[in-house]
Amino acid sequence: MADVFTEFELIDRLRAGAATSGRLKTGIGDDAAVTVPGGATATSVDAVVEGVHFRREFSSPSAIAAKAIAVALSDLAAMAAEPGEVYVTLGVPPATARGFLEALADGFAEAADRFGATLAGGDLVSSPVLFASVTVVGHAGTEGEMVLRSGAIPGDLVAVTGSLGGASAGLWLLEHPDDRLDADRPELVQRQVEPEPRLEAGLRLGRVGVHSMIDVSDGLVADLGHVAELSGVSIEVDSRLVPVQVGVPEVAAVSGLDVFRFALSGGEDYELAVTLPAAGFDAARAALIADGLDLTRIGTVGSGSGVTVVDDVGQITVPNGFDHFSG
Amino acid sequence: MADVFTEFELIDRLRAGAATSGRLKTGIGDDAAVTVPGGATATSVDAVVEGVHFRREFSSPSAIAAKAIAVALSDLAAMAAEPGEVYVTLGVPPATARGFLEALADGFAEAADRFGATLAGGDLVSSPVLFASVTVVGHAGTEGEMVLRSGAIPGDLVAVTGSLGGASAGLWLLEHPDDRLDADRPELVQRQVEPEPRLEAGLRLGRVGVHSMIDVSDGLVADLGHVAELSGVSIEVDSRLVPVQVGVPEVAAVSGLDVFRFALSGGEDYELAVTLPAAGFDAARAALIADGLDLTRIGTVGSGSGVTVVDDVGQITVPNGFDHFSG
Repeated sequence: MADVFTEFELIDRLRAGAATSGRLKTGIGDDAAVTVPGGATATSVDAVVEGVHFRREFSSPSAIAAKAIAVALSDLAAMAAEPGEVYVTLGVPPATARGFLEALADGFAEAADRFGATLAGGDLVSSPVLFASVTVVGHAGTEGEMVLRSGAIPGDLVAVTGSLGGASAGLWLLEHPDDRLDADRPELVQRQVEPEPRLEAGLRLGRVGVHSMIDVSDGLVADLGHVAELSGVSIEVDSRLVPVQVGVPEVAAVSGLDVFRFALSGGEDYELAVTLPAAGFDAARAALIADGLDLTRIGTVGSGSGVTVVDDVGQITVPNGFDHFSG
Repeated sequence: MADVFTEFELIDRLRAGAATSGRLKTGIGDDAAVTVPGGATATSVDAVVEGVHFRREFSSPSAIAAKAIAVALSDLAAMAAEPGEVYVTLGVPPATARGFLEALADGFAEAADRFGATLAGGDLVSSPVLFASVTVVGHAGTEGEMVLRSGAIPGDLVAVTGSLGGASAGLWLLEHPDDRLDADRPELVQRQVEPEPRLEAGLRLGRVGVHSMIDVSDGLVADLGHVAELSGVSIEVDSRLVPVQVGVPEVAAVSGLDVFRFALSGGEDYELAVTLPAAGFDAARAALIADGLDLTRIGTVGSGSGVTVVDDVGQITVPNGFDHFSG
């Protein structure tokens, strides 16, 4: 037992990395964490499982922890909420090495801190497979400041932050080490292994009054499908306008997959897709550029339903989105 | 794929069972749930894993769901918080039958409703082992209404609600089906399989001003150890005063284990252990009796540290609590 963690040791370790904030009154150690939110809160839950969402041969413990937290916080970015509290439940196989768990626990505390959140609670359970379940709570002054998926209006532009396809191209590189392209494209692998939630961009887009917002996790077309469904609108994307990350076309060429397979359905880029009035686009873009991030028009919102993709060879209707990319 | 659930189908099913409340503005379906807490919140996370915390041969899907939620809500009871929102992340093996998952999803919605909470969010991930990670959020008017583990004061009485030992005795019966005692003691098996969080009792104990409170999940002695540590006090328990559930002595006799092995270290009874001024005991007990539950004095708080158990053969110091009971 000397080389494994007990629940109490883990909680002590998490506690050492945790802070209290103005809002968090009682953190790790009691039956529950006590907060005084003082406004509206956004709460999202997510989980990552070894062999499904991460592999120890691809990611360090701190990268595994950082990605689990980044992915959860990305949902708060898509609400235009400020990051608040993070709660982590770890499922841990009995034989897991102490050093690995210590690095994982430290990674959660460090990632929460780096992204401006507070690690407020944790739990450890025994499990035959390693998993981390993450709950994040974000805050806004009022409910009206949150941006939902359901606010898209016919006539809106569709726009996306940054560039797409990099995370799934990075996954392809990790899964095909013999191609040796990864040495030339570390930024694609980095994008897959340690994504960055667009928290500041989400807040800025909320302030300029975008109508709807979602983070690109399942893939652009699938995610816009959620916006179309919840808003009761149709969305048309011009694939020629979609900003593709540098290096993705090379991976597409080597892999024999279409570049849009990565950029439209790859997912895991954690950019933000928004709809907004055409008159507001320049101001929204200027707000993001000030933060070092671009915003690109990629389509329009119409009446009707579903997502349609227009490309060089004409119009393709995509009733249920592309299939989720799997290497 | 026709007999398995997709994430979106599960979310639809959870959504069908979910409600909004005055506090919950946007529930399942968006990037995050939006609430307007309007006071202090208590947040707790917990997880149950197949083969570790439950077995399909012992529990129906609805019982598995109900126990996962009950165990999480028990932490809110121990804070004197009103149950608010429940978020469930399910890890599901690809081959899991649709009917099982439907029953599980319905079980979460039904249990949340039965315990006065609102199912506000959910997520589904692929996993080689079935698990459910549950986040619960409870509410109180102010931070000061919450009861912490850290409030015990030398001179306090120690008291416990209801009776102890039943859940672990029930587990012993489940694990020893040849003994056939379970047919005679269904209430012990029920206690193990479908525990009830003491939510109303927790609120009543909060109102009468108990100094500290914890739920009995790890075992009475281990849980009082947390109170002693966080309060910076010692606790002495008289084992002869501990209320033992009817039927537990029979199981102890058949199993060859000491009755206190079940009642002091068995855990999973989800009763509430409190410390309070001696002068307040009668009022506290009366408040619970009105709700059909007894409150029993079992010990005292002193200066010093650690938990000591007094029994028929003298005084035993228990530095780290008994070992957790495992059948």
